[in-house]
Amino acid sequence: VSKITIGDYLLIRLKELGVRHIFGVAGDYNLGFLDQILSQVGLQWIGTCNELNAAYASDGYARIRGIGALVTTFGVGELSAINGIAGSYAENIPVVHIVGVPSTLTQKHKMLVHHTLGDGRFNVFAEMYQKITVAQAYLTQLNAAQEIDHALTACWLYKKPVYLSVPTDISYMRIDKPKKPLYLTYKPSNQKDVNQFVEQAYRLFEHATHTVALVDCGAQRYPMKPLILNFLKQTGIPFANRGMGKAIINESHPQFIGNYNGDFSMAGVQDKVEGADCIIGFGLMPSDLNTGIFTEKLKTDLTIEIHGDSVQVQQFVYPVMFCDAIPALTQRFVEQQYTKNRKIHQFSFRQTDKPQDRLINQQRFWPQISAYLENNSIIIAESGTSLFGAMHMQLPDETSYITQTLWGSIGYTVGALLGVCVADPDRPAVLFVGDGSFQLTAQEISTILRHQLTPTIFLLDNSGYTIERVIHGATMSYNDVQRWNYKELPRIFGNNVWSVQVKTEKELARVCIERHQHKNKMAFITVTMDKMDAPELLLKMAKLMAQRNQYNPTHL
Amino acid sequence: VSKITIGDYLLIRLKELGVRHIFGVAGDYNLGFLDQILSQVGLQWIGTCNELNAAYASDGYARIRGIGALVTTFGVGELSAINGIAGSYAENIPVVHIVGVPSTLTQKHKMLVHHTLGDGRFNVFAEMYQKITVAQAYLTQLNAAQEIDHALTACWLYKKPVYLSVPTDISYMRIDKPKKPLYLTYKPSNQKDVNQFVEQAYRLFEHATHTVALVDCGAQRYPMKPLILNFLKQTGIPFANRGMGKAIINESHPQFIGNYNGDFSMAGVQDKVEGADCIIGFGLMPSDLNTGIFTEKLKTDLTIEIHGDSVQVQQFVYPVMFCDAIPALTQRFVEQQYTKNRKIHQFSFRQTDKPQDRLINQQRFWPQISAYLENNSIIIAESGTSLFGAMHMQLPDETSYITQTLWGSIGYTVGALLGVCVADPDRPAVLFVGDGSFQLTAQEISTILRHQLTPTIFLLDNSGYTIERVIHGATMSYNDVQRWNYKELPRIFGNNVWSVQVKTEKELARVCIERHQHKNKMAFITVTMDKMDAPELLLKMAKLMAQRNQYNPTHL
Repeated sequence: VSKITIGDYLLIRLKELGVRHIFGVAGDYNLGFLDQILSQVGLQWIGTCNELNAAYASDGYARIRGIGALVTTFGVGELSAINGIAGSYAENIPVVHIVGVPSTLTQKHKMLVHHTLGDGRFNVFAEMYQKITVAQAYLTQLNAAQEIDHALTACWLYKKPVYLSVPTDISYMRIDKPKKPLYLTYKPSNQKDVNQFVEQAYRLFEHATHTVALVDCGAQRYPMKPLILNFLKQTGIPFANRGMGKAIINESHPQFIGNYNGDFSMAGVQDKVEGADCIIGFGLMPSDLNTGIFTEKLKTDLTIEIHGDSVQVQQFVYPVMFCDAIPALTQRFVEQQYTKNRKIHQFSFRQTDKPQDRLINQQRFWPQISAYLENNSIIIAESGTSLFGAMHMQLPDETSYITQTLWGSIGYTVGALLGVCVADPDRPAVLFVGDGSFQLTAQEISTILRHQLTPTIFLLDNSGYTIERVIHGATMSYNDVQRWNYKELPRIFGNNVWSVQVKTEKELARVCIERHQHKNKMAFITVTMDKMDAPELLLKMAKLMAQRNQYNPTHL
Repeated sequence: VSKITIGDYLLIRLKELGVRHIFGVAGDYNLGFLDQILSQVGLQWIGTCNELNAAYASDGYARIRGIGALVTTFGVGELSAINGIAGSYAENIPVVHIVGVPSTLTQKHKMLVHHTLGDGRFNVFAEMYQKITVAQAYLTQLNAAQEIDHALTACWLYKKPVYLSVPTDISYMRIDKPKKPLYLTYKPSNQKDVNQFVEQAYRLFEHATHTVALVDCGAQRYPMKPLILNFLKQTGIPFANRGMGKAIINESHPQFIGNYNGDFSMAGVQDKVEGADCIIGFGLMPSDLNTGIFTEKLKTDLTIEIHGDSVQVQQFVYPVMFCDAIPALTQRFVEQQYTKNRKIHQFSFRQTDKPQDRLINQQRFWPQISAYLENNSIIIAESGTSLFGAMHMQLPDETSYITQTLWGSIGYTVGALLGVCVADPDRPAVLFVGDGSFQLTAQEISTILRHQLTPTIFLLDNSGYTIERVIHGATMSYNDVQRWNYKELPRIFGNNVWSVQVKTEKELARVCIERHQHKNKMAFITVTMDKMDAPELLLKMAKLMAQRNQYNPTHL
């Protein structure tokens, strides 16, 4: 058998999964491995300004290409990235985190080297990562092939991050080449479980007068989309989406009835969903911000849930994979000549009148901007006013819509934007980010410019943490941030940018058109808004958030 | 007994320890507590751009004021800060990390709320922090007073970070006011141990012909300075410092014999230290970069070590506090009419000739700049060429010299600079930072400008990670960074800055003088250097670092 270095083995396996770029920051414990990345044909190293941004970028990359990878250095580097990886864990994004660590001998002798805690404990950081990854390995010459294959397979199948420690002396040790491809197929579900699930689901369905499907983020994490599309086509059942499930199925689909968000749903949607006597949920993730702060009223005994690796009808859970469940369900429903729900009122988004010569506000910004978004875009909305504004905005067809609604780490989207641009530079990428969030990770704009990537960035400059102002402390100084000259900032980082600032609806309309004359550049559009101006949806939900946090001491 | 809220209790205790400013980032789980900070007389909230920088700032603040504190939000915020807190742990810096976490009820019911991993595990982040803090507590109404007192006392006494979780509903619950001050006194050492230590030390000393003291960072972490000064005065013993112990005792002291760093010591120092037959070490921390990559040859059987909470003679360790050990040792040595070491050749730093009209290089930059540094400065050197350049630079009297030589997280110093400026805005603060490191945390310049702070920043622009180029991969692209327009950057963040760029020695000399005409502004001085130009010390040590990392696969 021909031999290969452990570093190359790992890289070849990553390529097999579709990785073409690896993000990260160089450090003296990973330089040897970085040499291997640079000489691996078909792989590109994307150095980022810092490690947290590398983690965010890998997460964004994985959301577009199916998997992402980053390299950091021991201790300082990996801990800087840990918030990003925890986010990938929470949001079910498969990311491979490779950490260059001190040599086997250094660790064995517990040498007092830099990037350690100074107490001989070399395993502390790996122990932290055990809590937020589904597989971890400390590579040695003996275990490398097996551990790499195990970790990468787990990452791919379970859609969660994994963690690999590569000591400096290990990368160049030689092992056997991979003999066969990674085994990436899910274990087929037990046919008895599938049948039982389908029959139970069908019984619920056949007694129902109004059935509605609900599409959520799990339908993106696992590749459910073609199966759901077929299900919808075959059955004619109407569907709503949740915020995190937006645009997985086109919002122009004739069976689309709008965004469901409990008491904060789009007009008319709540009645349709909560009035249904059978709900079929695809990849549901019932977090606070995804359920109108728990104001949804879905009844478990009327709900069929299909997740990536399990299904549920009423209170019964079966270990059935989505890829077995959805086709079986489709077939059963169709066989029975389903004729309900024939009349569907397709959802109509609110349209704005013509842009006026007046200051832009949140209420009019989102419908106005939606008209300029192109099909096949990647649209990213930062936690904050952007997330809530985008939630009720119509997205164009074949959009990839990216948020971090559960983990909600502000600043995430700037790093994620780098990742998605690298993952597919040909798709239009559009970021909506507020000034407060932007300040956490702003420097990664420089890496986007460095690689001549051409996203459109809408920087909503509303003088601080507006989402927090509407939750609590509207006028408190802790919700202020330093005012930057945002318009001039990108040019500090690189030249390939068209940067403009707009304050009125007409100016916004004009730059949205002019943007096409600057196709080969990043467009950086600073939109000035009032600091207390927030999307209506956020204003409503913020009250509930404040209540749940029990800030008000009067009740004590 | 009069009552007080738990939030106020915590803040009053922090003030008792000397905290006057708290760093951090607002988040919806800490807004109620931030209200309490803002209304606490004598405390100021310093909002930072991101949480990692808040941790760095708190660390810098603690190095000047004795203790620091930061507030972050659950999950996303605290994990962003964790690298900074791990650094404080490694480097023995007392920092109090307060995390606003979801309400008691939310946690009890394992609600699927934002900033969680989505799996009901609310304790994951606290578990991570257990590994890098000396005390942790989850506050409740019943335990708050006791846990706060315990954690803050541990932080203060053991010079390590601590971690407090404050649920949103807990901050405003009322408990008894503190009845007495925190008990911050070390348990007196056992007198028998002290005597035994002193006698053993003395036996070593009386047979020695050449005794040398060695001062290291532990002498700063615990307040040893006045005791060491008295010891040196009473005994006349010469002393060297290690890199991390630089300037704790003035480098103009007549008994100062230079910087000891194993094979990479200043001229003549290695012979004097390794030729001594009795070494008295104060706060020694023998990490790789602090010992010339383990090239020091100190013999344990000739060494007396005094640490914060223990002492060692030869192989015997006693649990004796520095405050008991140093005076006893001084007294014993003096009683015996010590007359050795009378002739001390005080160390002379290399001086440069007059600034010339030629490009600046590392070899001439450090001696040249040293002439402009003022007494009572706070001088910060970033990991990289700055750290190695500053190591052999003469520091002015009463300098606080800050590096992160053990933990070595690049970007640390920009956040730390904010912390030290806030801690004592009247002392001149000077930062030396390379462009590669600067890019990780650059945005915190904006917070320094926001508060009208006036440090001097030397940005060494040498086109990437020069320290890594000299270790490995000199021309590899992973050591490049995007070139920014550094000179224009600070003005994006605020107006109160004087920003210049210099390339020649004469220009540098001129701006160092002109700087005084801009006293009330931040001075941002970009110094252009060649990308392969590194301090001589670094060039020598880098070879050993590369060897230890065993990058070279030929030996395998």
